[in-house]
Amino acid sequence: MPEYKAPLRDMRFLIDNVFDFHGHYAALGATDASPDMVSAILEEGAKFCENVLAPLNRSGDEEGCHFDQGVVTTPKGFKEAFAQYVEGGWHGVAADPAYGGQGLPQSLGLVLSEMIGSSNTSWGMYPGLTHGAMSAIHAHGTDEQKATFLGKLTAGEWTGTMCLTEAHCGTDLGLIKTRAVPQADGSYALSGSKIFISAGEHDLSANIIHLVLAKLPDAPAGTKGISLFIVPKFHTDSGERNAVHCGSIEHKMGIKASATCVLNFDGAKGFLIGEPNKGLNCMFTMMNHARLGTGMQGLCNGEASFQGAVKYASERLQMRALTGAKAPDKAADPIIVHPDVRRMLLTMKAFNEGNRALTYFTAQLLDTAHLGSDAAQRQEAEDLLAFLTPICKAFMTDTGLEVTNHGMQIFGGHGYIREWGMEQLARDARIAPIYEGTNGIQALDLLGRKVLGSQGKLLRGFTRIVHKFCAANAEHPQLKAYVAQLNQLNQEWGELTTEVGMAAMKNPDEVGAAAVDYLMYSGYIILAYLWLRMAIAAQAQVDDAEFARAKLATCDFYFKRLLPRTATHRAAVQAGSECLISLPAEAFAL
Amino acid sequence: MPEYKAPLRDMRFLIDNVFDFHGHYAALGATDASPDMVSAILEEGAKFCENVLAPLNRSGDEEGCHFDQGVVTTPKGFKEAFAQYVEGGWHGVAADPAYGGQGLPQSLGLVLSEMIGSSNTSWGMYPGLTHGAMSAIHAHGTDEQKATFLGKLTAGEWTGTMCLTEAHCGTDLGLIKTRAVPQADGSYALSGSKIFISAGEHDLSANIIHLVLAKLPDAPAGTKGISLFIVPKFHTDSGERNAVHCGSIEHKMGIKASATCVLNFDGAKGFLIGEPNKGLNCMFTMMNHARLGTGMQGLCNGEASFQGAVKYASERLQMRALTGAKAPDKAADPIIVHPDVRRMLLTMKAFNEGNRALTYFTAQLLDTAHLGSDAAQRQEAEDLLAFLTPICKAFMTDTGLEVTNHGMQIFGGHGYIREWGMEQLARDARIAPIYEGTNGIQALDLLGRKVLGSQGKLLRGFTRIVHKFCAANAEHPQLKAYVAQLNQLNQEWGELTTEVGMAAMKNPDEVGAAAVDYLMYSGYIILAYLWLRMAIAAQAQVDDAEFARAKLATCDFYFKRLLPRTATHRAAVQAGSECLISLPAEAFAL
Repeated sequence: MPEYKAPLRDMRFLIDNVFDFHGHYAALGATDASPDMVSAILEEGAKFCENVLAPLNRSGDEEGCHFDQGVVTTPKGFKEAFAQYVEGGWHGVAADPAYGGQGLPQSLGLVLSEMIGSSNTSWGMYPGLTHGAMSAIHAHGTDEQKATFLGKLTAGEWTGTMCLTEAHCGTDLGLIKTRAVPQADGSYALSGSKIFISAGEHDLSANIIHLVLAKLPDAPAGTKGISLFIVPKFHTDSGERNAVHCGSIEHKMGIKASATCVLNFDGAKGFLIGEPNKGLNCMFTMMNHARLGTGMQGLCNGEASFQGAVKYASERLQMRALTGAKAPDKAADPIIVHPDVRRMLLTMKAFNEGNRALTYFTAQLLDTAHLGSDAAQRQEAEDLLAFLTPICKAFMTDTGLEVTNHGMQIFGGHGYIREWGMEQLARDARIAPIYEGTNGIQALDLLGRKVLGSQGKLLRGFTRIVHKFCAANAEHPQLKAYVAQLNQLNQEWGELTTEVGMAAMKNPDEVGAAAVDYLMYSGYIILAYLWLRMAIAAQAQVDDAEFARAKLATCDFYFKRLLPRTATHRAAVQAGSECLISLPAEAFAL
Repeated sequence: MPEYKAPLRDMRFLIDNVFDFHGHYAALGATDASPDMVSAILEEGAKFCENVLAPLNRSGDEEGCHFDQGVVTTPKGFKEAFAQYVEGGWHGVAADPAYGGQGLPQSLGLVLSEMIGSSNTSWGMYPGLTHGAMSAIHAHGTDEQKATFLGKLTAGEWTGTMCLTEAHCGTDLGLIKTRAVPQADGSYALSGSKIFISAGEHDLSANIIHLVLAKLPDAPAGTKGISLFIVPKFHTDSGERNAVHCGSIEHKMGIKASATCVLNFDGAKGFLIGEPNKGLNCMFTMMNHARLGTGMQGLCNGEASFQGAVKYASERLQMRALTGAKAPDKAADPIIVHPDVRRMLLTMKAFNEGNRALTYFTAQLLDTAHLGSDAAQRQEAEDLLAFLTPICKAFMTDTGLEVTNHGMQIFGGHGYIREWGMEQLARDARIAPIYEGTNGIQALDLLGRKVLGSQGKLLRGFTRIVHKFCAANAEHPQLKAYVAQLNQLNQEWGELTTEVGMAAMKNPDEVGAAAVDYLMYSGYIILAYLWLRMAIAAQAQVDDAEFARAKLATCDFYFKRLLPRTATHRAAVQAGSECLISLPAEAFAL
């Protein structure tokens, strides 16, 4: 496994030079998030991730989780690392102080999450799922529920899960069969079976708090009849075991140290959270955060892969440069001299740094949506979040998978060997385009629900920002050609959207046919905007000319070699649905 | 694991309707390859692969190979399957009758190889490597060497390997350190260590014949000082063990049932094959065949993945079609109604069937290069082979990996679970872009050595075929728009090549910078040509209207949704090397 070093230089550049986190926090009144505090989180977080989590990544993959008669044991060292994490106060960094959290902005929590996910994706899922459960309870729980659960969850004494999927339904939650029958004491008896429950059973915490989607006996059919319940593994009063048990764990391609459980509820005692039949809405309130977190996995695995690939490419000697020997004293040149190796490395670098910028940009919107003092400002942030979230999730995970594949390729045959750790990153990265709503579903959410569903309003909220940026930088001495290119794409984006919208009015299949390519097309334009912001900020700072040069070179690469992919995605969007629909289903296998 | 059914309908369509294998064999005087014989190979080969090999694919992946003190045991059933394969005479289908083979054309051997690779990629590597060793001995061995080795290898009593890579060199074979010291009896004593040796040690055969690259004591430096040796595991005279031992086997991402060995040669007795210091040339003579075989792995894993995905998409019920319920009697519609699922399925179908056509087209050239009666015809075939081989290897394996990833994605969360077998196909497929010369190396071979190295002659050999085809079909009633599109791309291809060639004369880095995108660009155009040939042939046959309709729909999809990718690759080619080279190596990690 390549050694992980938190990319603090790049993180600081985004925080200080590109997105002015300090001004942002000051404006939101998040005074606790002082520059010193931000620095401390970066530095101490990096140490914890580099020294405690990263060394457990390969061994966790090799060992996997153990299942024995309902008991799940995590790989060696996971439990101790979790104890250390909790002890260090990391778990509550962005949690409500009313329940023992530090109350720092969510964006800082995400900065930390990147380091955790990069050093050990599987391990990071245990606290990650817990944060999801905490958000749900915080947003929808009664005061009593909050009092009962949030303290222990924030302290990391207990962990949480989200139980949605069943064997016959993942995307289509309207089909769930788990039932919740009201009991005389006001609780509910839950019966049914859930699958793919991350952190559903393990040995890291004293209790596990399951958030479970189920149907009340009189529930309307479909998604309007789903309610959300809290089901603790151990009853919080008596400490007795509840009737929820892990039936098995899955054997997966990757994230092997994350326990993916079948959970059987056999009349388990649960408590309704939020209103009856509004369970999906409760879930959706935390969706933006969870989907941004999942999107970040693409960045995390990509960053780890890049670090390994740069090191290997700088050390591995093979062939001479086409332009003549660069290391004549050695048996061959390091492979980083070869243009095609550089193409792969720069692709990795451009996606990682671009995706990190997208994460930080979106994370600030999360802060503003939560902490903004005026309603209009909060709404604007919510609208941008609604628009960007599916793009973060799908674009970052698809490109993250590409990045980890380049990383393997740079290692040649060694990339395929487990020992080197590069193939693990590609296996771990492969889940992210699937779970938390497949990338296809994200694309439908973006194009159908968000963009066309708002008559283009949510898109315009973003293109307006780009338009202003381009206007302000139209005469930039070094970058004006790229600014003009972005400006033109920004305009084309609106036109393409109108085109799809018109077609969709006649035929709803046009949305499904265009969605994934539309999302990727959008993602490339958004990254182009962020790359220009980074390039300009890099030039503006004067204390690190080498760093600025690297940023500019990567921006240049992005515009020349990656942004042209928009042409292909645009063509696919414009190809329409007919070429997808005309073939009868039974003829596919011919 | 999805059940494998050999796609005999599509194979027959290519054999009978598109490429007229019968006329082709007749013209080459390959009278043994009668229509009845071809039919028998298809049908009996399909049965063997479906019933014997396919059931061992998942279990072989789970079990892997075992290593114990130099002894390698293949997974349960592999040995018996190999015995059955040998017994059935499958191993010698395309081998020289002088040594017990059936002497059928290589193209028929490849048709069989597709079925083997699709049903069990790992298992297929044992006979596959043996075929490589047989070709080398056949082409370069003395009569005595042929007599000693080819009979047993053809019979499958012995198997073979190709020992090239060492820990410090894969691509750059000039760096190898294995030494061969001449002995008084005319043999050589080989010492050194080889890695990544597929089928280097196992329990399928009585003896293993290693073909080993090594350096003579007085060898010139670099690739001009490499010789090729035959090193049997057991001496063929005494039956005693030779001094070559397996030190360990690799733990890999996939093809886990294929033993990837470290082989240590400790003064092992070997025999020079071919001329001293010409070992690389000996290897190159079998490269076209081996690389086409590796390219086919993309098709094989892709076909298996597609079969699983179509079945799942037709059965899995989830959500309603955007245009209204299609299966109102069921809880939801099968996911094949959703345009985005169809996009993935059609991408898989278009690549698989296109790649199969490319394989058959190239396989015919292999036949002609071997069996053609006149020298000019043979040379023409050799030239086309030289041009197409790196494209087959890289394009088919890259697109094959994409196909297996779509297959996983269609399964949603289940695609990530080992039990379903879809993720194994993606893991198995991942090696093919790496080994047998990475795809980056294939691209350099194509653009640098073949295309520019021949001043464009090898490219023109192919574009002329496309040009003639377009001229002949310019007025095709249904397809003329696509013919025109192909014709234009075919012209653009030549122009783009000239552009790169001019740039490369000034700066050799331009070749490396453009190579991979140039190769992919070329691959998409070649597949467009083959898709049109298939569409026209499908229309021309009258006995299966449904099949023709499926072909036409898939061709339509290919032109509308996949061929536009050429635009992106062209832009990347034209972006030049500056954006790859300007960043100093030490600045990548900034």
